[in-house]
Amino acid sequence: MRVCFLGTGGSWPTRKRNPLSFAVTSGRTNILVECGEGTQRQMLSAPISPIKLDAIFISHLHGDHFLGLPGLVQTMSLNDRTNDLHVYGPEGFDVSFEKAMTMCHYHPRFETIPHIIEPGELTRVKDLNIKAGNADHGIPALSFRIFEDPRPGRFNREKALELGIPEGKTWSRLQNGETITIENGEGTTRISPSMVLGPPRKGRSIAYSGDTAPTDELISIAKDSDILIHEATYSDDLSDKAAEYKHSTATQAALIARKAKVGKLYLVHSSPRYSRQEKEKVLLIEAKKIFSRSFLPDDLDCIEINR
Amino acid sequence: MRVCFLGTGGSWPTRKRNPLSFAVTSGRTNILVECGEGTQRQMLSAPISPIKLDAIFISHLHGDHFLGLPGLVQTMSLNDRTNDLHVYGPEGFDVSFEKAMTMCHYHPRFETIPHIIEPGELTRVKDLNIKAGNADHGIPALSFRIFEDPRPGRFNREKALELGIPEGKTWSRLQNGETITIENGEGTTRISPSMVLGPPRKGRSIAYSGDTAPTDELISIAKDSDILIHEATYSDDLSDKAAEYKHSTATQAALIARKAKVGKLYLVHSSPRYSRQEKEKVLLIEAKKIFSRSFLPDDLDCIEINR
Repeated sequence: MRVCFLGTGGSWPTRKRNPLSFAVTSGRTNILVECGEGTQRQMLSAPISPIKLDAIFISHLHGDHFLGLPGLVQTMSLNDRTNDLHVYGPEGFDVSFEKAMTMCHYHPRFETIPHIIEPGELTRVKDLNIKAGNADHGIPALSFRIFEDPRPGRFNREKALELGIPEGKTWSRLQNGETITIENGEGTTRISPSMVLGPPRKGRSIAYSGDTAPTDELISIAKDSDILIHEATYSDDLSDKAAEYKHSTATQAALIARKAKVGKLYLVHSSPRYSRQEKEKVLLIEAKKIFSRSFLPDDLDCIEINR
Repeated sequence: MRVCFLGTGGSWPTRKRNPLSFAVTSGRTNILVECGEGTQRQMLSAPISPIKLDAIFISHLHGDHFLGLPGLVQTMSLNDRTNDLHVYGPEGFDVSFEKAMTMCHYHPRFETIPHIIEPGELTRVKDLNIKAGNADHGIPALSFRIFEDPRPGRFNREKALELGIPEGKTWSRLQNGETITIENGEGTTRISPSMVLGPPRKGRSIAYSGDTAPTDELISIAKDSDILIHEATYSDDLSDKAAEYKHSTATQAALIARKAKVGKLYLVHSSPRYSRQEKEKVLLIEAKKIFSRSFLPDDLDCIEINR
């Protein structure tokens, strides 16, 4: 499972940071989360093809999360995409998407299918699951948990031999969840997978805050995820501004990471008013005080999430 | 008078070229022509402030000329612009602009005033004049001639002394177009500016094709301009594609430049399917065969047009 940050900035672009967008790849499934202006150009320098995107998720309808969508769709069409594209967003997304698709003269050669997601809803895109939570941002806004299916438990080799199951294809069938029958001295025996497999193993997971003031719901969305991508618009000294505009500080993001017991925390969407140095010297340090495994990704950084 | 190319690409971005946009500055007047996606980010590396833009002109409503507009307006507002912004485009522009301004949750803190321009119309923005022509692109589309007012003629110092006009402020008043009276031995004499000034001198001018198949109207829009910025989407071997999509080849652009007797030709909007080398080795060479003062600007190149 891989995350590529296409844009890590907030509100408006800087020379170093495009507005928000990241791509998640798991096996044959590719989704894009957020699509700030310029996302399609960022993709040209990343290992992601617009043509191969299966779906796009938008957390809320502020420009820095959405304005790259019409251009990306247009470019997919000019580059001969023919597959349907499913796009997901919060309440009001259908109207915004319709405007985005009709404000210029162009007609994609493929179907674009907008979906409104309610908080709590679970969406399936090929092999990935996307659970939406409610974000607290003053307008309809979502958080997401993106997770793989659980994998089958570990195969108990000793147990299989003890039961007299012949090594080879039969083992694979059991690992794939099939019940088999074997013949031995005592007649026919049915062997179900649970007899030779350990408990199912958790799939990998990513949580993403969207833009939000801290909420308890986000802790449950992020619970035990491998990584949490969290907005950190302000530093502690601007916590009043964070509250006013319903954003989070780096400290608040780190508190969520700690309470949710995530593996790593990636801070994004810091205000473009901070220089790179300030982001590192202030925001990241504030987060690390609370949660040591905090990181500040750059545009075009990719992270592999290992099993 | 200065032109800064913010984006020189066509159709969709490449790593080296943003979709189309250029800024024109003349004295205290700043206008933006075209606003492809990513224009605001390009401006961060150019000597142009979005806050100081007086007006924006869009030639036609294809995404690569328009999709950067909502983000630019939003960023102006987030950076405390308060001045009205006038935006101009062809038939249908009002509807597109309304969609662009309402598809996300944001409310600029300043007035945005859309205007539809008819071909032939002359628009005044502070000290600049913008004449629109009809482009041939299959949808409502414009070309532009952007020009300064004529400057007063050269001041005839000898004539002024001969007429007994005292040197100093009086000379400046005449140069500024004021009629004055002077007292001398023979009584009072009225002196009009034409008595001491040569014929008015032509202001500087820029012509821009928009996206278009070649037209005679464009020759008259570009007539004797200092520079012509012309689309060159294809090379000669794809002239059938140029005709089909109502674009121009580099050769066709150069023919317009030659017939209009312009000073220099700048080719933009070549298809992203050409590499940089192909653009230089094919498109530019084809143009230079017809019109030697042809150039292929890069993103962020600025040109000074001298008097």
